[in-house]
Amino acid sequence: MSATKKNPVRTTRRQFLSAAAGGGAAVTAQSILPVSAAEIEGLPPEVADWSRYLGEGVDAYPYGQPSKFESHVVRRNVPWLTASVESSINFTPLHELDGIITPNGLCFERHHAGVAEVDPAEHRLMINGLVEKPLIFTMADILRFPRTNKVFFLECAANSGMEWRGAQLNGCQFTHGMVHCVMYTGVPLKLVLQEAGLKTNAKWIMPEGADAAGMNRSVPLDKALDDCLLAFKMNGEALRPEQGYPLRLVVPGWEGNMWVKWLRRIEVGDQPWHTREETSKYTDLLEDGRSRRFTWAMDCKSVITNPSPQAPLLHKGHNVLSGMAWSGRGTVERVDVSLDGGRNWRHARIDGPSFDKAVHRFYFEFDWQGEPLLLQSRAIDSTGYVQPTKDELRAVRGTNSIYHNNGVQTWHVRAGGEVENVEVS
Amino acid sequence: MSATKKNPVRTTRRQFLSAAAGGGAAVTAQSILPVSAAEIEGLPPEVADWSRYLGEGVDAYPYGQPSKFESHVVRRNVPWLTASVESSINFTPLHELDGIITPNGLCFERHHAGVAEVDPAEHRLMINGLVEKPLIFTMADILRFPRTNKVFFLECAANSGMEWRGAQLNGCQFTHGMVHCVMYTGVPLKLVLQEAGLKTNAKWIMPEGADAAGMNRSVPLDKALDDCLLAFKMNGEALRPEQGYPLRLVVPGWEGNMWVKWLRRIEVGDQPWHTREETSKYTDLLEDGRSRRFTWAMDCKSVITNPSPQAPLLHKGHNVLSGMAWSGRGTVERVDVSLDGGRNWRHARIDGPSFDKAVHRFYFEFDWQGEPLLLQSRAIDSTGYVQPTKDELRAVRGTNSIYHNNGVQTWHVRAGGEVENVEVS
Repeated sequence: MSATKKNPVRTTRRQFLSAAAGGGAAVTAQSILPVSAAEIEGLPPEVADWSRYLGEGVDAYPYGQPSKFESHVVRRNVPWLTASVESSINFTPLHELDGIITPNGLCFERHHAGVAEVDPAEHRLMINGLVEKPLIFTMADILRFPRTNKVFFLECAANSGMEWRGAQLNGCQFTHGMVHCVMYTGVPLKLVLQEAGLKTNAKWIMPEGADAAGMNRSVPLDKALDDCLLAFKMNGEALRPEQGYPLRLVVPGWEGNMWVKWLRRIEVGDQPWHTREETSKYTDLLEDGRSRRFTWAMDCKSVITNPSPQAPLLHKGHNVLSGMAWSGRGTVERVDVSLDGGRNWRHARIDGPSFDKAVHRFYFEFDWQGEPLLLQSRAIDSTGYVQPTKDELRAVRGTNSIYHNNGVQTWHVRAGGEVENVEVS
Repeated sequence: MSATKKNPVRTTRRQFLSAAAGGGAAVTAQSILPVSAAEIEGLPPEVADWSRYLGEGVDAYPYGQPSKFESHVVRRNVPWLTASVESSINFTPLHELDGIITPNGLCFERHHAGVAEVDPAEHRLMINGLVEKPLIFTMADILRFPRTNKVFFLECAANSGMEWRGAQLNGCQFTHGMVHCVMYTGVPLKLVLQEAGLKTNAKWIMPEGADAAGMNRSVPLDKALDDCLLAFKMNGEALRPEQGYPLRLVVPGWEGNMWVKWLRRIEVGDQPWHTREETSKYTDLLEDGRSRRFTWAMDCKSVITNPSPQAPLLHKGHNVLSGMAWSGRGTVERVDVSLDGGRNWRHARIDGPSFDKAVHRFYFEFDWQGEPLLLQSRAIDSTGYVQPTKDELRAVRGTNSIYHNNGVQTWHVRAGGEVENVEVS
């Protein structure tokens, strides 16, 4: 597919502000034209029912819920992707969100044996293996360690996995929706391991979940002692059941299934365990039949969430392009946006907090007059790593992989504003 | 009431880490002793049902909900406080939260005519008064302006109002629960006002709500052009109905009822309107019968959320004291904690992001052997302002006030760990 001929002119923020500051007369085609621009001085807006009658009181929702007008903003699963809903995934509706925080009710889910419904009063965390003093902790014990608060993204290694062999799912919710970003409150894992006392030959840990899958992975001790957390809160409140309530391991920047949920045990060892989920699964098969060993870090990645197939362009004139970028190796330093399939790039504006190993929000204000677009975003992280194209990834990795596809995504905006998932070469 | 005699010895974080690093033998009374410390090598923990059976699948909750074991973590209203639930308040369960983000479902509510159930497709924002070009915006129009993402606390001016005449409500949810802190996505109000074009004599704006109360307040134009936002998202998703869906005014650092919800109109004028909610209400009556005029900024304040009356001390030995601090005039630079009613103060540890006009989280790790405590926290903001005692406030303001009580709160911890709301002089 060839790139679009016409190259839309970007209005920079400065130009925009300058035009806006000019007031009525100066603000013409470049303006954020209201739909109902009119001389309305003295006339009140039409009075809606909600301005005329009392609404519900403060006792209606002890725990609040979204507006009924937002009922389409939900996680969605794709039944044909997996054999059962208990070992499956659903997807965050990225195109409906903004900022860098994912609200708890919309964080994607991935389970291997369904959501364990754990009673926190009965839950225990056991530390055993190469430690001086094997221990079992209650949740109350964990809460007596010093805590910290950190924002981290969590991305499933299989996010965008369907993109290896070409564009297949039509919506960023499905192509990129296995990522979320929340503020965790937790105890540095280091403190709890030190309480048990690490033996001198300790080199690895194996966190294990209390779900029926007994989910487990090998994590090098260096990482465990560096920035891993035993998290019990997300965005201020208790972890949600589907996110490992009451206790999950946080492994910043590394693939999601290492963040063991419903954490019940950490075994300390001197070598990796080569569990099921790090051998037959969560391993990348190369073209020559060999597999990459231990691909933990999630490389720098970005996606344009608006416009995207589920969020078409609706208006000509000024529009806000929005997207998210993240890196498992640091912060995101820069995001470039292309409107013409990668021929020309311009810097997007990163807005909001920039945290290590967290989602960054970017915007690009542009003018659109109905011409077709090929939208791309490309993120560059604090190590200097540049998000690759899908073709660049395939040249190195082949197309046998499921995991770790961080290639540049392309959205084709048609003349009518509809958006589809395409590839450009 | 006199201060407690015994002065508990604080274990510093360094001492704690040092003790923990010492391993089994060195870790005695100063340790985070697990409840079930034992030699358990080789024995798996008891296997719970949730480790034996499949849980619910990924299609169970398109919009996720808290664990059933967290059903007590809810906003609570106090029926006797107000005449009706439509013009009333409920309170954030601060003692159940951590970090700096309040989850959307637990942000306190304050309405004057119930929750307006606004259809975003029908909603309009009108700008009129001293502008070159009066305008009516749809929500789609608003979304075409450049956006920004900011974390701000919102505090009702009446928060802690019952404390003016002495301790009355037994729990930080009720004494301090009219505050929350979220990340907003919105458009700088400045851009929208500039689109309408401000006349040279414009000095004030009057935002007005689309609820049946037609809630309105006078806001000086300088503030409007400085940092106010037209917010449409909170913590990543659409505003909740009770927080002004689909559009609310964000007035950083200033009292909550200026943050007009369900925002339908902004009138620009050359003087304040002296509306009901800034004259008969939301005004502080002094001892001499005069009132303070326009008390917008919320002064620096803090509260210990754990332990507190709803969250007693349950264990001797190491404990984590936690609390929150905020200032409408900047960041929080320091928080001091006293265990003896203000005789001795020590620095708390502020942990997590420090944003301008946002909640800050603080911790203080201490050892408790059952002695009574008089817990206090005292915050100091980036302007150098020190949170006053309640007596210091009363000396200046008398006790006729309802609003703007940012005095130091005292919790009395009894020998059994129970906590009550008290005053010390």
